[in-house]
Amino acid sequence: MSLTVVGSIAFDAVHTPFGEREKMLGGSAVHFSLASSFFTEVRVVGPVGDDFAQTEFDVLENRGIITDDIERVAGAQTFFWKGHYEFDLNTAHTDDTQLNVFGDFEPKLSEQSKSSDMLFLANIQPDLQRQVRAQCGDISFAGLDTMNLWIDIAKDSLLAAMSEVDCVLINDAEIRQLTGESNLARAAKAVMELGPSAVIAKQGEYGAALFTPGGFFALPGFPLEDVRDPTGAGDSFAGGFLGYLDGECDRIDENALRMAMGYGTVLASYNVEEFGTERVARLTRDEIDSRLEALRSMTAFDGG
Amino acid sequence: MSLTVVGSIAFDAVHTPFGEREKMLGGSAVHFSLASSFFTEVRVVGPVGDDFAQTEFDVLENRGIITDDIERVAGAQTFFWKGHYEFDLNTAHTDDTQLNVFGDFEPKLSEQSKSSDMLFLANIQPDLQRQVRAQCGDISFAGLDTMNLWIDIAKDSLLAAMSEVDCVLINDAEIRQLTGESNLARAAKAVMELGPSAVIAKQGEYGAALFTPGGFFALPGFPLEDVRDPTGAGDSFAGGFLGYLDGECDRIDENALRMAMGYGTVLASYNVEEFGTERVARLTRDEIDSRLEALRSMTAFDGG
Repeated sequence: MSLTVVGSIAFDAVHTPFGEREKMLGGSAVHFSLASSFFTEVRVVGPVGDDFAQTEFDVLENRGIITDDIERVAGAQTFFWKGHYEFDLNTAHTDDTQLNVFGDFEPKLSEQSKSSDMLFLANIQPDLQRQVRAQCGDISFAGLDTMNLWIDIAKDSLLAAMSEVDCVLINDAEIRQLTGESNLARAAKAVMELGPSAVIAKQGEYGAALFTPGGFFALPGFPLEDVRDPTGAGDSFAGGFLGYLDGECDRIDENALRMAMGYGTVLASYNVEEFGTERVARLTRDEIDSRLEALRSMTAFDGG
Repeated sequence: MSLTVVGSIAFDAVHTPFGEREKMLGGSAVHFSLASSFFTEVRVVGPVGDDFAQTEFDVLENRGIITDDIERVAGAQTFFWKGHYEFDLNTAHTDDTQLNVFGDFEPKLSEQSKSSDMLFLANIQPDLQRQVRAQCGDISFAGLDTMNLWIDIAKDSLLAAMSEVDCVLINDAEIRQLTGESNLARAAKAVMELGPSAVIAKQGEYGAALFTPGGFFALPGFPLEDVRDPTGAGDSFAGGFLGYLDGECDRIDENALRMAMGYGTVLASYNVEEFGTERVARLTRDEIDSRLEALRSMTAFDGG
């Protein structure tokens, strides 16, 4: 099984009440691929500049991630994001965005990346997501993430992109904004009417809810006393979710999706314990499975 | 088994995007007692005015609730609250509060009410909560709810009141405000250090989280496509929670608390489907158990 992700590869500068980093590896495709690498073969597609060194490649390659489709753009700099979080850690405030190599990014997928079993379209401009989706005709399952910016400035493209995937992962505030529906169940139904058979509403520290036709499942965020940096939590969730589906499920049914929600929750929880990719880069499969068990026991209740 | 609740008995005027009521039965003790009446014998303590008619008593008495300790204050009016909800239904905006009989309320409990097995101190001034708690010396389990107002103007009394109960139910924004701790797990631990052995953080549509020493459990809100009036959801949750513990549990252990969280979630979900007490007043135990089963199936996930 194999999984291709297209998204940003970045350097991040992040300040939280618990510390800061001036320049660390980040980006949606990076967080996604690290999380999914515990379950399946992962290929990353995205551009980097001259400043992206072997040290950065090593973080991915040490996890067995295939970096052949990372495009090095000579004479240019890697995408850069600077942001901070306040007291409650729930909202990222952007202080600076330098698109750099991402400004002219035209995704070119190798034959191997195109013929992966699954595809994740991380949060990039929806027309680029559609372009990638079109290149991967035979994919068995495609997921998509997005953000409020594209709802504001490219809503029609985004709706078209959503109609071409199997699963949409989106923040709960964004799905309300997109659909104009305050009720989450109705908002999810409106997105499923576009085509996807699964919608995941990400709810930050409250966890995530999965909507399928006629089905509902929800998990709380894994309770942590020390959350240091929420950056990449959503992409780590998506990585655990699609990685598990691709690598360890014979078929995608309700139970597989629920287990995948569990792995997504676990990967997101490890991601936020430290800055950037620090924690997930040295994570082990045993740690993942032991936290999944803990999560299961935190959500089970029996008959009286 | 028997359960006493002290709190407000009110008339509410409520406007939501889905309708409005000019004057309907409400109040924390009313919502709590209706919800708990499905599980155990419930006694309500609180004052009403001349405008509180047999029609209102009937709503409680039809559910078997014992109203002997409802104090009728001659020549005065019942507590009145007017509020509205906007698009997202998450925040109540208060438009008017008339304390009326509640302004001079001095809780006087009958011997029967004092000797109940369990006690719920609904959201009233914390010194009054302490007064009631002191009258009920032999209670086996006491729960307490509160609101941001008391954190603002009577924080020391509130902390003292919390130290005298077994379980605190509180909104997650309020527990953060109270403890100055943005992290929910740490905030709950700080409250447990005051004395309570269980803390429930109510999270609106996201559900509720239960913290016990070394334990964590969370349930999502029951997904509903039609939420008409959130007023009383928290008190209905508390009623399902304590009602089940009092009426149907031999001992209060982790599993009993989790089941009680399930019943709380179910009662809150029925409460918000219609205005005020309308839905819960005609609810059946079969409906409760069938929704509990649905909730269980929405939160379970199995091995791969």
